[in-house]
Amino acid sequence: MGEINLLYERELHEECGVFGVFNCPKASELTYYGLHALQHRGQEGCGIVVSDTEKLTGVKNEGNVRFVFPESVLKKLSGIHAIGHVRYSTTGGGGILNVQPFLFRHGDGDFALCHNGNIVNSQVLKQNLERKGSIFQSSSDSEILAHLIYQDSRVKRIAAIKEALIYLEGAFAFLVLTNDRLYAMRDRHGLRPLSIGQLENGYVVASETCALDAIGATFVRDILPGEIVTIDKDGLHSDFYSKDTQSKICAMEYIYFSRPDSDILGLNVHRSRKEAGRLLAKESPVEADIVIGVPDSSLSAAYGYAEASGIPYEMGLIKNRYVGRTFIEPSPALREKGVKMKLSPLRSIIQGKRVVLIDDSIVRGTTSMKIVEMLRQCGAKEIHMRIASPAIIAPCFYGVDTSTYEELLSAFNDVEAVRQIIKTDSLAFLSMEGLKEALGQRDFCAACFTKQYPTHLYEHIENANKDGKF
Amino acid sequence: MGEINLLYERELHEECGVFGVFNCPKASELTYYGLHALQHRGQEGCGIVVSDTEKLTGVKNEGNVRFVFPESVLKKLSGIHAIGHVRYSTTGGGGILNVQPFLFRHGDGDFALCHNGNIVNSQVLKQNLERKGSIFQSSSDSEILAHLIYQDSRVKRIAAIKEALIYLEGAFAFLVLTNDRLYAMRDRHGLRPLSIGQLENGYVVASETCALDAIGATFVRDILPGEIVTIDKDGLHSDFYSKDTQSKICAMEYIYFSRPDSDILGLNVHRSRKEAGRLLAKESPVEADIVIGVPDSSLSAAYGYAEASGIPYEMGLIKNRYVGRTFIEPSPALREKGVKMKLSPLRSIIQGKRVVLIDDSIVRGTTSMKIVEMLRQCGAKEIHMRIASPAIIAPCFYGVDTSTYEELLSAFNDVEAVRQIIKTDSLAFLSMEGLKEALGQRDFCAACFTKQYPTHLYEHIENANKDGKF
Amino acid sequence: MGEINLLYERELHEECGVFGVFNCPKASELTYYGLHALQHRGQEGCGIVVSDTEKLTGVKNEGNVRFVFPESVLKKLSGIHAIGHVRYSTTGGGGILNVQPFLFRHGDGDFALCHNGNIVNSQVLKQNLERKGSIFQSSSDSEILAHLIYQDSRVKRIAAIKEALIYLEGAFAFLVLTNDRLYAMRDRHGLRPLSIGQLENGYVVASETCALDAIGATFVRDILPGEIVTIDKDGLHSDFYSKDTQSKICAMEYIYFSRPDSDILGLNVHRSRKEAGRLLAKESPVEADIVIGVPDSSLSAAYGYAEASGIPYEMGLIKNRYVGRTFIEPSPALREKGVKMKLSPLRSIIQGKRVVLIDDSIVRGTTSMKIVEMLRQCGAKEIHMRIASPAIIAPCFYGVDTSTYEELLSAFNDVEAVRQIIKTDSLAFLSMEGLKEALGQRDFCAACFTKQYPTHLYEHIENANKDGKF
Amino acid sequence: MGEINLLYERELHEECGVFGVFNCPKASELTYYGLHALQHRGQEGCGIVVSDTEKLTGVKNEGNVRFVFPESVLKKLSGIHAIGHVRYSTTGGGGILNVQPFLFRHGDGDFALCHNGNIVNSQVLKQNLERKGSIFQSSSDSEILAHLIYQDSRVKRIAAIKEALIYLEGAFAFLVLTNDRLYAMRDRHGLRPLSIGQLENGYVVASETCALDAIGATFVRDILPGEIVTIDKDGLHSDFYSKDTQSKICAMEYIYFSRPDSDILGLNVHRSRKEAGRLLAKESPVEADIVIGVPDSSLSAAYGYAEASGIPYEMGLIKNRYVGRTFIEPSPALREKGVKMKLSPLRSIIQGKRVVLIDDSIVRGTTSMKIVEMLRQCGAKEIHMRIASPAIIAPCFYGVDTSTYEELLSAFNDVEAVRQIIKTDSLAFLSMEGLKEALGQRDFCAACFTKQYPTHLYEHIENANKDGKF
Repeated sequence: MGEINLLYERELHEECGVFGVFNCPKASELTYYGLHALQHRGQEGCGIVVSDTEKLTGVKNEGNVRFVFPESVLKKLSGIHAIGHVRYSTTGGGGILNVQPFLFRHGDGDFALCHNGNIVNSQVLKQNLERKGSIFQSSSDSEILAHLIYQDSRVKRIAAIKEALIYLEGAFAFLVLTNDRLYAMRDRHGLRPLSIGQLENGYVVASETCALDAIGATFVRDILPGEIVTIDKDGLHSDFYSKDTQSKICAMEYIYFSRPDSDILGLNVHRSRKEAGRLLAKESPVEADIVIGVPDSSLSAAYGYAEASGIPYEMGLIKNRYVGRTFIEPSPALREKGVKMKLSPLRSIIQGKRVVLIDDSIVRGTTSMKIVEMLRQCGAKEIHMRIASPAIIAPCFYGVDTSTYEELLSAFNDVEAVRQIIKTDSLAFLSMEGLKEALGQRDFCAACFTKQYPTHLYEHIENANKDGKF
Repeated sequence: MGEINLLYERELHEECGVFGVFNCPKASELTYYGLHALQHRGQEGCGIVVSDTEKLTGVKNEGNVRFVFPESVLKKLSGIHAIGHVRYSTTGGGGILNVQPFLFRHGDGDFALCHNGNIVNSQVLKQNLERKGSIFQSSSDSEILAHLIYQDSRVKRIAAIKEALIYLEGAFAFLVLTNDRLYAMRDRHGLRPLSIGQLENGYVVASETCALDAIGATFVRDILPGEIVTIDKDGLHSDFYSKDTQSKICAMEYIYFSRPDSDILGLNVHRSRKEAGRLLAKESPVEADIVIGVPDSSLSAAYGYAEASGIPYEMGLIKNRYVGRTFIEPSPALREKGVKMKLSPLRSIIQGKRVVLIDDSIVRGTTSMKIVEMLRQCGAKEIHMRIASPAIIAPCFYGVDTSTYEELLSAFNDVEAVRQIIKTDSLAFLSMEGLKEALGQRDFCAACFTKQYPTHLYEHIENANKDGKF
Repeated sequence: MGEINLLYERELHEECGVFGVFNCPKASELTYYGLHALQHRGQEGCGIVVSDTEKLTGVKNEGNVRFVFPESVLKKLSGIHAIGHVRYSTTGGGGILNVQPFLFRHGDGDFALCHNGNIVNSQVLKQNLERKGSIFQSSSDSEILAHLIYQDSRVKRIAAIKEALIYLEGAFAFLVLTNDRLYAMRDRHGLRPLSIGQLENGYVVASETCALDAIGATFVRDILPGEIVTIDKDGLHSDFYSKDTQSKICAMEYIYFSRPDSDILGLNVHRSRKEAGRLLAKESPVEADIVIGVPDSSLSAAYGYAEASGIPYEMGLIKNRYVGRTFIEPSPALREKGVKMKLSPLRSIIQGKRVVLIDDSIVRGTTSMKIVEMLRQCGAKEIHMRIASPAIIAPCFYGVDTSTYEELLSAFNDVEAVRQIIKTDSLAFLSMEGLKEALGQRDFCAACFTKQYPTHLYEHIENANKDGKF
Repeated sequence: MGEINLLYERELHEECGVFGVFNCPKASELTYYGLHALQHRGQEGCGIVVSDTEKLTGVKNEGNVRFVFPESVLKKLSGIHAIGHVRYSTTGGGGILNVQPFLFRHGDGDFALCHNGNIVNSQVLKQNLERKGSIFQSSSDSEILAHLIYQDSRVKRIAAIKEALIYLEGAFAFLVLTNDRLYAMRDRHGLRPLSIGQLENGYVVASETCALDAIGATFVRDILPGEIVTIDKDGLHSDFYSKDTQSKICAMEYIYFSRPDSDILGLNVHRSRKEAGRLLAKESPVEADIVIGVPDSSLSAAYGYAEASGIPYEMGLIKNRYVGRTFIEPSPALREKGVKMKLSPLRSIIQGKRVVLIDDSIVRGTTSMKIVEMLRQCGAKEIHMRIASPAIIAPCFYGVDTSTYEELLSAFNDVEAVRQIIKTDSLAFLSMEGLKEALGQRDFCAACFTKQYPTHLYEHIENANKDGKF
């Protein structure tokens, strides 16, 4: 089936990516290529709903874009407007039922909906809706928005959407498609990214600008925190569901999730990472022979570190591109004997060397431990780990699965304790100031580094990420 | 189905990789992980034959290792000896019939066989064998060796193999497995690599050392040109079928095919590439703002160039990891509009820059042209292409599909003509001396750069690679 | 994928079969075998929801039981209560979204629901519910019942179900499963069958008794029109949502749909068909050489006719068992030349004979025409068609897809006109009196023969079966 | 995957069916429909090789016709000549390697080959060929014929075939296809059937006439024992490889294997079975209430018995059409509780009745025992088993897998002993005279009833069918 991104066990997961096109011939093909460019944001499931201006048609399934949409399926989806979704995980129940977009058949006109993010007050909202007679087929937050919008069928659609969004607390980028309109909206803190592009006479919206590039669209602007953009035959219309907005983009979008070729709030992701690496070299220099990065997300920071420090960059670890979901994991016995399949060290590069090892973050620390052990077995003389972001001390409630609070290595260990656990000769994290500088002084959500959450929380941090809801 | 390596259209193809284990519990699992490490050498088909010392059992199919061997299939292959094969292409007819290993059921004992390379006199040999009553079910060279070995059933097996090999002219690394023996042999010019490793009480042979590392085996030595290594319960036995041997390893193994973490003849592949990049910087310097490489095989050379020139290395192109065999290619119309899915340029990195673009080779030039065009569209001010190997002026007869003679861009165009075709501001290739230095003065086959073929050829170079036989 | 029943183009389709078990270890396996016995009622999709008393888990998909539930899937469904569903068709939109059972995640406890039949006032009910804020993900009637039940979350579940059923007009057999209860209910006219069986300490409900036999359960009784049976840890509890009930079982269950080994209201289906054939022989005798039946559903009637008439029964038509959904239909050109794949006549049996051809019904007449033509080509001297039920003159609104009104051959043609169209030497239908006698004077719905519909209709008969909603 | 014929565990298996067309547009489609009509002869694997007069192209795989040839695959096989094959079983090793047709790439022109039957001296022939240098990739007899034909490449093809056939002892119907010729041949005892038909300007050959009918071809004649028919652009040419011929068609073709609508040696299969049933009624009458047959192959005999005895025929057993290869077998525990899925008795028909149970044969007796037990559980008062063929006392060496000698119930038990084992009230087999009369006094191979084998045997009857070679 599907390919997955975790060529080594990624420890951070985001839940999704969204993509939409309006007034573009071959809307489903464009969405296919757009979702393909967003595939790194979720490989577990995906879907496309297309409008031919008279009705909505959709296909969704578990698996990646390539698997869910063979040519025979894709060509059945004809229309000029479309929305699509890639989803990280379907654990937490529901399987295909939680795959998006959701398509609702309604007497006032069908509509479809998909989203990226996490609603922190979803439980409360769901109970209220159930009390009024709503029933739910999935455990997804998207279904909640749909119920909120259709609570009162007498008001106008845009008014209903504005009303509904007021109830939602948390992080979200939502797309809603009707026969002849596309609505795109972002939470009032701007936690999840969402950008608009133009393609000939049509418009495109996407979680990342790399998806605009992938289909040849021109970047127009980012959707603003609290904004609802309505796209119809007359073009773009802007509206805000809240005046109380801030720009608090998730820092992890720069550090880890987004593709290096995406720009967020005008800043290129690769550039921010390389800069983080440069600053890290200044903050925490070390005498060493080579700099190596953990592929793929840490390579930019590793180049930056090498450049700023003057220590040569080397390809010290490579990863096998052919690992995927159906791959058979080596048994513990085989693993013990040295069978490895995701990351391979270059023994002849590493042997006898003092190594600066750059990674983007430490979550549970298990991957770091394995890599360090591998490098030691290859004869690394010293290993100096440098992390291109601050230590993660708190869980995320906004759609990033940083694993549970008690599993976060830095939540209960200081830097020296972490160093001892992962067995490096030295360890340093980028400072918060460094991160701010790397992100060009943009404002961002740093809750996982600081415990300063921008919204009210509806559950205790010890329960975060425990329900497998994403 | 299978994942393929060509995240952009690779223009050079090799036909296969071989792997064998002897006297190792869980031989088929080890072969699975070994083949997985060799997957870059061929994704179109693969197979494993295992011996439990009493009989041989095999599975093979079209597709990559992960697809052909789900857990349910792999666990049926129990035994302590095994050979396996990954194959680049099954075009040219036969489909699954050409997938290896070949398993023959014989009254004297079953045997299996697989190989990497190309026999240049296969047509002549096949005609002779048919005249004596042999019939062939595939168009593979491997079947020829099997027929040669069993021509006369009265002689001892090792004698029969030695006799048979004498007839074969060309490039090969062969593995033959019987119930209780594993034979590994290399052509007398040593064109194709083959290395031996040790794993506890057993032995491992593989086309590349990265496959030894992948299963935790210790490198012992390379098999020598013209050598037949027999592995049985008493260990390794060496023999030579020819005294007239040379070491003429294919230069492309270093330049393009092999994984960066493999060592060939004691030289690490990444290191040789980085060194080629350094030498290229010295031979053909240029004033520029950034150095970028074409992922993945040219990245090492790009680092080398950046390091030696002092020009910063940047990630200017990234490739989408989720492309694969079943992916739907954009229609020409969509492609025209800018839909792309394999390689994406980082606009904000490239815009306004003077770029040194490093690639490992130019074959037909079509990929180079597309990349250059993409970079121009992103606003590159100047593009200076630097190729980390000499110009390819002649086709390969030894198992590398460098496309046909007339399609080789440098075969009929000098450097300036090529530059005009691919539309760069400047273009330079590494010199032959540079390549020799990068390969540590090892001897190698440079026929594609020089037309100096180490063997007699049995067909005209204009017909090379036309039959789609690989 | 799935096998389908239409070994020749069946012209009548029913929409589903339901099956449930309560308090039986291996509930999902039992449901698998139960659904397998009901597979003739629908091959397009199926699903199972199982309760382990604490939570509900479900799997459903397009395809038949064998395809949707490979061993690896089935074994994940562990529990002691379960309901399952086979579905005829997913045309009319929705695809997998319309496959049942539906599983709802509710704060008061999850519940699942499946049904067989058709609600005639579903459009009105849906509009009312939408006006109150309900939104629908499928076009299935089942979702309506779920919304009706949960309209007011303050009342007790059984009361809510009783209240909800009052709103439903039409034909239905519903199963509702919660963590610890199974509800089974039938419409107040008893149009769709539903029987209860006992298996050790547990209970079983099924659309047909053949499914009780298939798992070794003992028949207890049929559920009565208007009855709601609640099964919990204390056993069976009976309740009625309406006092205004009649027993109007669908005659087509005897004539065509049900398996010959099922008993409905105490009468064996094969026996009723054979008796219909006997009565047909008495009502419409003819001088002939052989009696043949159209396999499979008309064979019982053919035996009956042969027995009563004394004319020898012969196997004059056989059908190929290997036809299925993925089979490639012969092109018109090949069909013209005589390529056939579903029904084959036995030329040497038919040649020169006066044939009595027995079929269960004539719907559009196209199949009859093809069969008659085939028999003529084989040299049948005379063809006397005898139909073991009255002429169908009106569409069904209760879950039988008798195609649309205007396509019904007998709706606008008398017997002689039909005879001329299908080109037989004579034609006769069973009389209504004959059908009553064959069904042992049981009361039944004969609307398709008489236009006497037992319920109010909410749409014009000219629109019946046009929406492809089943 | 594939559908299989064994809706209850069939105890007799034949190995294959062959089909060929010459000079017919859309040869592969015709072969597809022809093989589909022969699917009952083998569902485990199938293949088609097609000639466009310049080259041969083939596809084969495990699974039934529908599974192996989706439309996308079938349309790749374009040509005007073709041969195809359905295979019963691939057990005995080799899997796909043993699936036919075999396609050989030869300097003198490619050729393909398939066959139905069993060569009794294959071991000896294989050893001789290996001694001369042949090597084998399958354990199939077909490969032997190919090697024999090409032993000496100097003689003409037809002479080589005649020469080769002389060496073969046993039962066979062979088809050989070259670019422009189709050869069809039968063993000198005529053990396996093979018929020729005409279709416009082309010819068709098939194991059974039902396959000629299926594509609209007109029956021409049966190929004679020892005959080689060559079909080329000039039409049919007849030749004989042996003068020492007899017509000894396998009796089981009439009794069990062939489709009721096939004619063998001019006698319809259904008619012969019905006649066997009539004769059985005369030979072994019994007082009873109903006659029932074991579906499907015994139904014709049951009608015959009912007609001749005057006892009413009833549908006492029905089988589920949806069983197939991937169906999950009930566990012994569930089976114990009464879960059944292949054959269902009609309780209300059987209860309290004296039953005549007709079956076509008894092999190991296990199925008979199960059926008898099922009928007893349904309340049958008496069960009188009548077998429409003589008792099987010896194994078959000619391609019928009657299981091994020691498993044949009648090999070591007389009729009374068998009756006690299967627990019926009475038991009778058809006499040899009865069988001869039912087959219209045609000569046939009755070795399994008499131990009179028409050929020399090369192994002891105790070893027959033990090697799983089919």
